[in-house]
Formats: sequence, C-alpha cells, structure tokens
Amino acid sequence: MKLFYSPASPFARKARAAAIELGLSDRLELEITDVLPGRPNRPYAETYNPLRKIPALLTDDGTTIYDSTVICEYLDSLAGGGHLIPREPPHRWRVLTHHTLAQGMCEAAILIRYETVLRPEERRWPVWIDDQWDRVESGLAWFSQNAAELSDPVNVAHLALGGLLGYVDFRMPERAWRTRFPILRDWFERLERRPSFQQTRPANLPGAAAPTAAK
Amino acid sequence: MKLFYSPASPFARKARAAAIELGLSDRLELEITDVLPGRPNRPYAETYNPLRKIPALLTDDGTTIYDSTVICEYLDSLAGGGHLIPREPPHRWRVLTHHTLAQGMCEAAILIRYETVLRPEERRWPVWIDDQWDRVESGLAWFSQNAAELSDPVNVAHLALGGLLGYVDFRMPERAWRTRFPILRDWFERLERRPSFQQTRPANLPGAAAPTAAK
Repeated sequence: MKLFYSPASPFARKARAAAIELGLSDRLELEITDVLPGRPNRPYAETYNPLRKIPALLTDDGTTIYDSTVICEYLDSLAGGGHLIPREPPHRWRVLTHHTLAQGMCEAAILIRYETVLRPEERRWPVWIDDQWDRVESGLAWFSQNAAELSDPVNVAHLALGGLLGYVDFRMPERAWRTRFPILRDWFERLERRPSFQQTRPANLPGAAAPTAAK
Repeated sequence: MKLFYSPASPFARKARAAAIELGLSDRLELEITDVLPGRPNRPYAETYNPLRKIPALLTDDGTTIYDSTVICEYLDSLAGGGHLIPREPPHRWRVLTHHTLAQGMCEAAILIRYETVLRPEERRWPVWIDDQWDRVESGLAWFSQNAAELSDPVNVAHLALGGLLGYVDFRMPERAWRTRFPILRDWFERLERRPSFQQTRPANLPGAAAPTAAK
C-alpha cells in the first residue's frame, strides 16, 4: 500500500499513527505529496484525489481510498476490525463523534494556517482567525472536561486529538494551550511516548518551510 | 430524536434526506440552528457541538451525535444497517471514498460562500475562491466520468452529491454547471424527483437571506 502524505499534516499523521498502532506500518510505503491551495497538483488530482487533499491511500489492489477517516477504518479492518473504531453501538457512535470533534479542530487549525501564511497579509480577516481558534479552544475545553473519554485503549479520536495538539505545537506554539489545559498536557505527554507518535512527529517539507502565496 | 439544522446546509440536507430514504423521518424533530462563523452560538456550542456546526442529532437516549456522516451511519443502523452505507468491503470503501469526495466538494462550496458573503469585500482573495471552485469542478468531472457509481440504489455518496448540486443551484446559480456536465444534470433531475430531495429543498432562514459580517 502507498500513502500519499505531507510530513506536517495532522490528518496524514492520524493515518500513519493508525498504521503503527495496528502493526501495519511495514506494509505502508510513504510518498510525500504537495497539495497547498492555490498551487494545484494536477497529476495527483487526476490520478488519485480530485479534491487535492492528503492523505490518500493506494491499496494493493489499485483502489484509492480517502479521507484519513476512511483510511483509518480500512486499516483497522485489515487488522481484524474494532481496534481503533469500535464496531458496536453505543461505543461506536461515541468514538466517532469525538473523532469528528477532534477532526473539526484540525480543520479549524489548518484554516488558520492558510489564512496566516498563504493568504496575502492585507486580505486576512481577524474575525475568521478568532472564530476558527475559538472552535479549537472550545474543543480543548470539552475534552478537558470529559477526560474519561481519553483513557486507554487508544482509538481514532485520540489519534486525531493528538494530531491536532502536535500540529498546534508545530505551527502555532504561541497559542500555549498547556497552561490552560493541564489535563490534556499530561495526556498528550503520555501519547507522545508511544511509537505511533514518536515516529510521526510533524516536520517541514524540504524547501517548503515558508510557502509563498500566489497573488 | 431531534436534528439541529439549517434549511440551506447541504450537510443537514444529507442527514434529512437519509432519514426520509430510510423511512425514519416521522421520528425526527427538526430545530433550526444558526451557526454562522463570527456569530458564535454559545448555547448550542456548550450543550451540543463545541465546533458550532450543524447538523447534530440528539438521540432518544440523550446522546449527541455528529457530523452528518456519523448521523447517516447511525440512522442507517436504526433502519437495520447496510442501506445507505454498504457493510461489506470492497463496496463499503468505494462508497465511503465517493462520499468523502462529494463531502469535500460541499466544504469547498461553503468556503466560497463564506468568502463571498461573510468576509468584508476588501479582504476576499480571488485565488482562494478559484482554488475552492476548482475542487468542486474537478469533483463534478470525476463523477461525470464515473457515472456508473451514480446508479441505484441510492447511497450516502449520492445524497452528498445531490446536496452539493442543490446548494450550488441555490447559492451560486451563475456557476451554470449543467451545460458542462449533462450526465450529472440528468442524474440530478431524477434524484430531485425523490421525496427525500423534494422535501428538503434549500431555503433561506427567515431574516438571514443576506448575513452581515462582523468586521
């Protein structure tokens, strides 16, 4: 199998971490893929994902699967199923809803990144940035108040939340979330010791540390 | 059950249409919920969804489930399972991936809407609008070239694609997609005759036809 990914993407990190948690990482070839808005990667769009988003997974039978959530369920099924995503209700709905929450926090953080790095400075809108960050912060408060949901065994919501926290540390360290959410700080410290998180720490693409915007 | 929704949202339409297709609409109470970026709906965020997104579903046992995709799978399971989302691979991965594609097209269309209506005019960025529309257009081209995937029985990817087409017609009719994608035009014409689409046509919220932006 081949995973199209970017080393900084929290969505791709979730999929990579899932493969490691499930004992499948040896079967996963990784291919760095550039997909920034305004710089369309046409060959990738035409062959794999018309949305030009990563991650996408090319399976051994030549099918392309996306997004990260579907990839995680697919990998889970390869490992027998029910590991990262519970099979039975009501636990299934609870984990999938918490996963949606963490995923939405990642999407909000990515929108902040695009707004503050890709978009020309005079076209940025502080109301938008504050609104997206407020969603991240509301989600952090929710997980903090519902910390029982973060206990082992690791599930797909945990991988998404860990991906978000790692992304915020990497791209917007000034947000300094640890002081306000000590419960999440302690939880993330434990998660970061797992091989699935140690081996997938965010990194810049070579030469892509400071993307320049098309005007 | 109660569904928090907005009459214009393609995501909420997907969930409402799913309930109708599954014969569950009599059990679904609908509550209009305002969630525009920059105008945070705190009571909704605190009680139901910290992301302040709709739809969310309050189940009969008092649990909140989101997003629209998880809601569709939940409703499908109430109806016995396997109706709108196939249970077995490889059909399951195919439908879920096509659903992700249609869902991503909806997200791109919503980002265009926010950019062109909510955001102050001098802060809009044409590169962003063009990039998002290019994703919609690439997705339309993909579904057009893979029209076999659109044949009956109706699945969750169809509901998402139909929601997208209805949203584009409602919010950006100038995009005039029918001339370029006649296969999708004919397919959507058939879909729109189904009760699930007739009963969920997009509409403006009373008094919300022209949202004003916080500066």
